[in-house]
Amino acid sequence: MIAAMARWDPDARGRLMLAAMDLYSERGYNQTTVAEIAKRAGLTERTFFRHFADKREVLFSGSAQLEEAIVGAVAGAPESAPPFDAVAVGIEAAGGFLRERDYSRRRQAIIAPNPVLQERELIKMASLASAIAGALRKRGVSDPAASLTAEAGTAVFRIAFERWIDEGNEKHLLALIHESFEELKSLVA
Amino acid sequence: MIAAMARWDPDARGRLMLAAMDLYSERGYNQTTVAEIAKRAGLTERTFFRHFADKREVLFSGSAQLEEAIVGAVAGAPESAPPFDAVAVGIEAAGGFLRERDYSRRRQAIIAPNPVLQERELIKMASLASAIAGALRKRGVSDPAASLTAEAGTAVFRIAFERWIDEGNEKHLLALIHESFEELKSLVA
Repeated sequence: MIAAMARWDPDARGRLMLAAMDLYSERGYNQTTVAEIAKRAGLTERTFFRHFADKREVLFSGSAQLEEAIVGAVAGAPESAPPFDAVAVGIEAAGGFLRERDYSRRRQAIIAPNPVLQERELIKMASLASAIAGALRKRGVSDPAASLTAEAGTAVFRIAFERWIDEGNEKHLLALIHESFEELKSLVA
Repeated sequence: MIAAMARWDPDARGRLMLAAMDLYSERGYNQTTVAEIAKRAGLTERTFFRHFADKREVLFSGSAQLEEAIVGAVAGAPESAPPFDAVAVGIEAAGGFLRERDYSRRRQAIIAPNPVLQERELIKMASLASAIAGALRKRGVSDPAASLTAEAGTAVFRIAFERWIDEGNEKHLLALIHESFEELKSLVA
């Protein structure tokens, strides 16, 4: 009974993520195997595959939760909020969701030089834009307004995020999201 | 001499594109081989590979010229034009560049059900946004304004393009681009 309990590790997922990030940084993403990640985390490959479909998903497992947080906030924005404001509420929720700048910086350093991972990131962003557009349609916003607002909001998010993980930038993500929304307003005006 | 001239076909590229589109529509993209495309066009595989790197490039060979046309128009916009107007000039140039709605509709019908082709399209759009941002920087626009404007302009283009190839929509692409820019302005205001 005690042995069985000891095999259950509540933080296996977190340990696997840290081990993967360390190995991706040290040796490069392509040179790292799942076996090595599991070993570094002191776990088995079987445990790895209970948490992640493959070594790529370690880097992207947060995207679904992020999307959920943003879409939930868009849906929950005041009924009277115009589409662009509802999207701003959603994107600002992302600013609260993403807190660990060091993790995001390390992740970005792994993704940037790898075209396959970059493509995956593009796909996640496209999926985010399309989920936001869906949330706007549920609020009664018709197309093309729903898609346009969702795309513009996603662009604001991506650019604020890039500024946030830029070395030397110590502003909060939420402040950068605010700034980027204001900047877009003045550019389009 | 006459034989050598006869082997040179000034419209080989166009014939290969048409043959490929026909086969992709009839059998599906994955089920079509380069050998079949060449045969349908009455040409050799060697000729195919003189024009296209692979069967995917038949669908994306226009993207580089489109990007060039847009970036050239952004660069050539009046010096006094604010960033968003310079991008509008560039995107409107795309409206002049893309004239064959039937071709674009058929191409879309091939890409839409195929995740690999969709990803390729996303990458081309990301490359377009980054090329427009580069053209803005050369005009003296700093970041994040350059990236934000480029991303917003690319979103407008994508949405106007989607509306254009939507069955039942008979408006001109240029008119749809204008409408989408105006719509974005009123949404952001």
